[in-house]
Amino acid sequence: MKELNSSLVLLSGGLDSATCLYLAKKNSKKVFAISFDYSQRHKVELKKAKLLSKKLNIEHKIIKLQTGIFQNSSLTDKKIKVPKNFSSKEKIPNTYVPGRNILFLSFATSFAESKHIENIFIGVNVLDYSGYPDCRPEFIQSFQDMISIGTKSGEEKKTILIKTPLVDFSKKEIILLAKKLNVPFSLTHSCYDPIGNKPCNVCDSCLLRKKGFDEAGILDE
Amino acid sequence: MKELNSSLVLLSGGLDSATCLYLAKKNSKKVFAISFDYSQRHKVELKKAKLLSKKLNIEHKIIKLQTGIFQNSSLTDKKIKVPKNFSSKEKIPNTYVPGRNILFLSFATSFAESKHIENIFIGVNVLDYSGYPDCRPEFIQSFQDMISIGTKSGEEKKTILIKTPLVDFSKKEIILLAKKLNVPFSLTHSCYDPIGNKPCNVCDSCLLRKKGFDEAGILDE
Repeated sequence: MKELNSSLVLLSGGLDSATCLYLAKKNSKKVFAISFDYSQRHKVELKKAKLLSKKLNIEHKIIKLQTGIFQNSSLTDKKIKVPKNFSSKEKIPNTYVPGRNILFLSFATSFAESKHIENIFIGVNVLDYSGYPDCRPEFIQSFQDMISIGTKSGEEKKTILIKTPLVDFSKKEIILLAKKLNVPFSLTHSCYDPIGNKPCNVCDSCLLRKKGFDEAGILDE
Repeated sequence: MKELNSSLVLLSGGLDSATCLYLAKKNSKKVFAISFDYSQRHKVELKKAKLLSKKLNIEHKIIKLQTGIFQNSSLTDKKIKVPKNFSSKEKIPNTYVPGRNILFLSFATSFAESKHIENIFIGVNVLDYSGYPDCRPEFIQSFQDMISIGTKSGEEKKTILIKTPLVDFSKKEIILLAKKLNVPFSLTHSCYDPIGNKPCNVCDSCLLRKKGFDEAGILDE
């Protein structure tokens, strides 16, 4: 990757965004990170995001969203059960959060444009994802097109660039890359439905993580 | 306008969004409104937004954003002076707020998708605006395209529709329409740089408002 001046990382605290954080750090002169507290069931991920940023000495901001913005998702409504063992029959499971990546990327756009940050990293990947429409390359491209038209930086031909370095990676490949970058796996969290702070080991996100580590032949520790 | 089932209005408390609110109310079975507290210099507009919603008996939510999201704008930074008497020499004046409509429309998208609201009204207009890239029809179209690709409702061919009924209206035409709809002008606020709660009468927004009322031959009261 060509060296970048400044990058903002959307950091959930999961494996993919942590890998993005390490990639951005390796390839940028200056890195910022933002995370979102949206009353998610797996809020423990924010602690990991904080620890990861601290470890790399990166300026990190947690943006707190009022409850009620995201509804009708098992990740924000405890009355809706998180599917276990890939039991969801729907193309888009109920862990989908309405417009989440659109909103997060929009915050990142405002923040980046305010601070003249040139790049935004987001850890979406198309292979081992759960069918979310806001993780696909065609969505990212359309978001990129939209901010090129709808921002001052776009108007001035200095459009903020959305970087998705993991978009074509399988979970196995992400883990191998993370290993190479020395991402501390224990400082990442994937589970949608943790019991206390521990992963449930049976939600889609836990299973995808396990499969990835198995295929990579690496211990998740 | 064909009758709509449900509409969400982005309500700043200004003349244009108030007119949108009345239009949405007239043409929709159910209407919601959202406003944003982004530590704007003209926060008094939120009081008007509240009064307008109350008058029409519309469910209204004010979303408070953490300070520091929007920087480098005279509307959020009191150290930057609001231009007076169209004095700005820049194509996009410093009253531009980085990514504001992108962020507001994204909130509206998440909120609408969560509540199964079918339409989002935004009062952008291209003729009498201040050169903001996020008020142009091509921006709205690209935002529409982006949410068609990036949401579950889009995937299911029930995309939320962004409505811009004022997009080709001059300020004069908006005022004439507002008059017809009985929008209470005194419950709207336009000034970027109010003195106390009173308009300054010399910022671009005040001047555009005055010009519109003069051309419409209507008193602003």
